Amino acid sequence: MELLAEHGCHGGVQRFYRHHSAAIGLPMRFSVFLPKEALGTGTTRVPALFYLAGLTCTEETFPIKADAQRYAAEHGMMLISPDTSPRGANAPGEADSWDFGVGAGFYVDATEAPWHMHWHMESYVASELFAIATTELPGDAARVGIFGHSMGGHGALVLAQRYPHRFRSVSAFAPIAAPMKCPWGVKAFSGYLGNDPVRWAEHDASELMTGQDAPPFPAGILIDQGLADRFLEEQLHPEAFEAACKVAGQPLTLRRHAGYDHGYYFIQTFIADHIRHHAAQL
Amino acid sequence: MELLAEHGCHGGVQRFYRHHSAAIGLPMRFSVFLPKEALGTGTTRVPALFYLAGLTCTEETFPIKADAQRYAAEHGMMLISPDTSPRGANAPGEADSWDFGVGAGFYVDATEAPWHMHWHMESYVASELFAIATTELPGDAARVGIFGHSMGGHGALVLAQRYPHRFRSVSAFAPIAAPMKCPWGVKAFSGYLGNDPVRWAEHDASELMTGQDAPPFPAGILIDQGLADRFLEEQLHPEAFEAACKVAGQPLTLRRHAGYDHGYYFIQTFIADHIRHHAAQL
Repeated sequence: MELLAEHGCHGGVQRFYRHHSAAIGLPMRFSVFLPKEALGTGTTRVPALFYLAGLTCTEETFPIKADAQRYAAEHGMMLISPDTSPRGANAPGEADSWDFGVGAGFYVDATEAPWHMHWHMESYVASELFAIATTELPGDAARVGIFGHSMGGHGALVLAQRYPHRFRSVSAFAPIAAPMKCPWGVKAFSGYLGNDPVRWAEHDASELMTGQDAPPFPAGILIDQGLADRFLEEQLHPEAFEAACKVAGQPLTLRRHAGYDHGYYFIQTFIADHIRHHAAQL
Repeated sequence: MELLAEHGCHGGVQRFYRHHSAAIGLPMRFSVFLPKEALGTGTTRVPALFYLAGLTCTEETFPIKADAQRYAAEHGMMLISPDTSPRGANAPGEADSWDFGVGAGFYVDATEAPWHMHWHMESYVASELFAIATTELPGDAARVGIFGHSMGGHGALVLAQRYPHRFRSVSAFAPIAAPMKCPWGVKAFSGYLGNDPVRWAEHDASELMTGQDAPPFPAGILIDQGLADRFLEEQLHPEAFEAACKVAGQPLTLRRHAGYDHGYYFIQTFIADHIRHHAAQL
């Protein structure tokens, strides 16, 4: 791992790393906030919270825009945020769309050519980066949570359900909560996973929740959604996830906020509540 | 004034405006955070805090990166941040340097050609935007403070001293505190103001403070400075401003922070203290 930059921040440090990813087969970048509790020379391990960003974002979006470090510092929590796709793969057409390809990995392992060569964001986040966060970095493997925004909210709700023994708490801002029902999800799933709806359902938060035998997060899931979000009606479908949680008996706090849109002014307004949600469960 | 965008944020709104500036002679953009107290239909006026950004920044830098809105919301305070220079003037060489011309107005009214045509950032901030903030927008003209970062810290310390009846409180992050002593300041002042050091001294925070008959801000000035700031030794000279405050009897809290650099991770760490400093004095 190459440390690209380190900045003093709220008594801890905000770092940016580059490394060769075995899962992706290319160099990847990620950002990490380490609270002061994690900076000693000892073996102190701290709770860690993964943040998955949305379409077009990078590993810098969250540390620059979300205002999370202050609250992570208060709770002695590490924050880690990956990039949103492979970069530099030179796959044909990878940069033709803002909602598919570069900056739009959707946190799945692609099976369709040419994406199957490098677009392995599920393995990258849930296995490789999870291992880095809890071995090379001082995250406590027994206290890892996950959250995210929009495409990253989809990623958080799906990876938490697919890897509940790794991710012990989950929340989301304006997630793509039922990707099989929306244009973004249909485009991504057909491109990355092919045309079999059974494969799609394995990566759809609402479908996964509907199929749960028991509530996977009995302490509750938190979702915040702005009602002035221009993507809400066509792309997000929080009501589908809400209905699925009812079926599964999964406790869900879904807050709908008048006047808030899809961006980081919305996220910064409610970030403290999310950090507190995870701190209480980790 | 044209409202370009409005985002719900911490119970208030983050807005971006464009308007034709009479002082500059070109369209200018600025950002405003209005707390919920300022959103009613009545005539409620709220304290207002100007933030001046540093080299290369825009009116977006502060609302995106500084994490200030939460604290402004807590104190019922309006925030306003202008761009850092005219744009679109097409002055010869205006984009040749990152530390002069576009993005580098230094908050002075230029007297030298070709900058004297549009580079009037002092009049723009201290007169035109002050008037807009306290008439068209709901700022209370008797409760306006000013702060800034780097070049904008210079601007805040200078404009507060030149217009003490407009700006009633002042603070700065890593300000260019003695521009006549540093390469950035010498380049800017010689380019915008010509070669007369008497003119320069009228825009040098330390020179202005040395010449004060009485402390202009008896309730105190707050400055935060990171000790891992790569610009500290050559460009910033807080010790010169500290010495000048001693001469003038001006109370100054100058905090030096080990491990913090020149960027917004430093600013977000201490922003709450600055908002509190202004709220207490306004």
